[in-house]
Amino acid sequence: MKKNYLLTPGPTPLPPQVCESLSRPIIHHRTPQFQDILKEAHEGLKYVFQTKNEVFILTSSGTGGMESAVINFLSPGDNVIVVEAGKFGERWTEICNAYGINCEVIKVEWGKAVDPLVIAATLKAGKGTFKAVFTTLCETSTGVATDIKAIGQVVKDSEAILVVDAISGLGAIDLKADEWFCDVVVSGSQKGLMLPPGLGFISVGPKAWKLAESSRCPKYYFNLKAAKKAYASTDTPWTPAIGLVIALNEAIRMMKTESLEKIFAWHNKMAQAVRAAVKALGLELFAPDAYSDVVTAVKVPAGVDGEKLVKTMRDTYGVTIAGGQSEMKGKIFRFAHMGYIGEFDVITGISCLEKVLAQMGYKFEMGAGVAAAQKVFLK
Amino acid sequence: MKKNYLLTPGPTPLPPQVCESLSRPIIHHRTPQFQDILKEAHEGLKYVFQTKNEVFILTSSGTGGMESAVINFLSPGDNVIVVEAGKFGERWTEICNAYGINCEVIKVEWGKAVDPLVIAATLKAGKGTFKAVFTTLCETSTGVATDIKAIGQVVKDSEAILVVDAISGLGAIDLKADEWFCDVVVSGSQKGLMLPPGLGFISVGPKAWKLAESSRCPKYYFNLKAAKKAYASTDTPWTPAIGLVIALNEAIRMMKTESLEKIFAWHNKMAQAVRAAVKALGLELFAPDAYSDVVTAVKVPAGVDGEKLVKTMRDTYGVTIAGGQSEMKGKIFRFAHMGYIGEFDVITGISCLEKVLAQMGYKFEMGAGVAAAQKVFLK
Repeated sequence: MKKNYLLTPGPTPLPPQVCESLSRPIIHHRTPQFQDILKEAHEGLKYVFQTKNEVFILTSSGTGGMESAVINFLSPGDNVIVVEAGKFGERWTEICNAYGINCEVIKVEWGKAVDPLVIAATLKAGKGTFKAVFTTLCETSTGVATDIKAIGQVVKDSEAILVVDAISGLGAIDLKADEWFCDVVVSGSQKGLMLPPGLGFISVGPKAWKLAESSRCPKYYFNLKAAKKAYASTDTPWTPAIGLVIALNEAIRMMKTESLEKIFAWHNKMAQAVRAAVKALGLELFAPDAYSDVVTAVKVPAGVDGEKLVKTMRDTYGVTIAGGQSEMKGKIFRFAHMGYIGEFDVITGISCLEKVLAQMGYKFEMGAGVAAAQKVFLK
Repeated sequence: MKKNYLLTPGPTPLPPQVCESLSRPIIHHRTPQFQDILKEAHEGLKYVFQTKNEVFILTSSGTGGMESAVINFLSPGDNVIVVEAGKFGERWTEICNAYGINCEVIKVEWGKAVDPLVIAATLKAGKGTFKAVFTTLCETSTGVATDIKAIGQVVKDSEAILVVDAISGLGAIDLKADEWFCDVVVSGSQKGLMLPPGLGFISVGPKAWKLAESSRCPKYYFNLKAAKKAYASTDTPWTPAIGLVIALNEAIRMMKTESLEKIFAWHNKMAQAVRAAVKALGLELFAPDAYSDVVTAVKVPAGVDGEKLVKTMRDTYGVTIAGGQSEMKGKIFRFAHMGYIGEFDVITGISCLEKVLAQMGYKFEMGAGVAAAQKVFLK
């Protein structure tokens, strides 16, 4: 009889319309019926990505999208800049290394955001030799949001393409792919798009297509030239995850009805509420200078076992938040407020957090966090 | 109000239990809750693959599984044998070529099966230089079944690993991965496993792992060493397609309840019924010497527009079968009887085929096909 509540930075809860659409009988993908669906999905993704470029649907996790963003534009021996401000920035380096691409890593302390001027200086020092700059919209491992708009200004006049991992955050916080000069944007289904995991997305602009001409990384499944050819006839090169594409349209219809502006404002409000709540509990934000509106990382207070906190909330009370990853294991917890999350889901999460903190002997005024969140939502 | 009937070689119809499971609220993947699910999936896949080897779950279409089977075991410049008896055999060559692997292609006429002795002779002529033999369990483009058991006998004592594309056919026709010496077997979710597309599967045996040690193809998302490491702690390297894995367990539970033996016998009966039906209509099998029990390819009779036949069945009457692919476009149609298909689904398909053939002016005795199928099912 235990109820489950999901407040993790992916997967995020599914709206009932999405659940229902996933349970429909399957249809064949090489039919006019599915072509209509795919056409709607292509248009819908352009809306969410805020781009006029093609957005390709990959059957993969977001990591498959990231690999696509490396191997379609680069060649072994190429030089690129990678911003590493957490676990997902490091993933760019790992993928590039796997393909013999040389990474100039801009290492940023976990919990901080990269300074766009450092990227500018690094690009300048490279004297036109860097082919790409790899960044992360929201570094899920730290909860930090990156100033992609400012980075776009820095990269746009260079020879490098700007590649953004927007897996966490797209559709929940603003990312104007075209207006901000993002040449390649990668995302996934299980975050702001409110779907189960299983789809990756990648948008590709003209500067990136030009670079693709000389790419010598081997590829087949993730070959975006094949995807582009299929896209032109509203098709996919391989059998797509039909059910998830149908569900994608349901989710994007909801998003269009609400409007991106309102969705972003709502995520901002939830983030404010969570930040107010944890502060009221005497807890400290992990990234006070660069928090995002999709996931809030909070330092585990002294004397509290961070891993046990997350496990107790989940296994005893059914409220799943995320713990710290890699070097932050046990040191932070991450409270996500992304996708199909309402005001009272946030209240539930804070309430459970208070309960378990109290049980673990942490001293605070019971109810202070919930009240602080309520006050933000009342505004 | 038009009803849809799916008789295509992937996707195949979804059982209601599978549909229902797909509509459940999503859960997080790094939890004991999902670990239990993944453990059941790993065990279930071993049952379906008839193997003691690990079977990895990939978030991809079957083609991603095929690419994994190439890039994890081979290096640029390696020599391999590829059996090309249709479109999906050709895919092995395309993937190998993308990675600089040299293919000795055994070209087999479309509609025929490879002679295992030809593989033996090719291996012998290579004097131990071939590292792999790539084959296809059921060549969906022609409906031909390959004698994997005999090929296993031929390859097992060579230096080469035997790699089987069992995307079409696994769980519907017999493939004893271990007993038949298949070192690597690839499959997908949307065929015999009765799921939506979106998952790839790959089993890997000791001879293949040994080869993996020296593989120099670049890889990241499809790196099976990372998958193996995660598998050991009942985990996945990347976010898995959680909903599809849950549905996989539903499907495999059904299959275990029924037993593989009975499922194979049932597919054989359906295939017999379809073959009897088309013969009774005066139509000719495309692969009379090597038909499979999962999809029956039939020659389009003279005077009938094959593409129009398939389109009319689908767009006017809601019965989706498959047309010919590549060089067989318009020349054959393919009637699938794979997965969650019952006796009366076959009758429906034959009945619709008769109706449209009659409307297109083809001469035959109305009802003869249905009656022939009924007689097979009555036995």
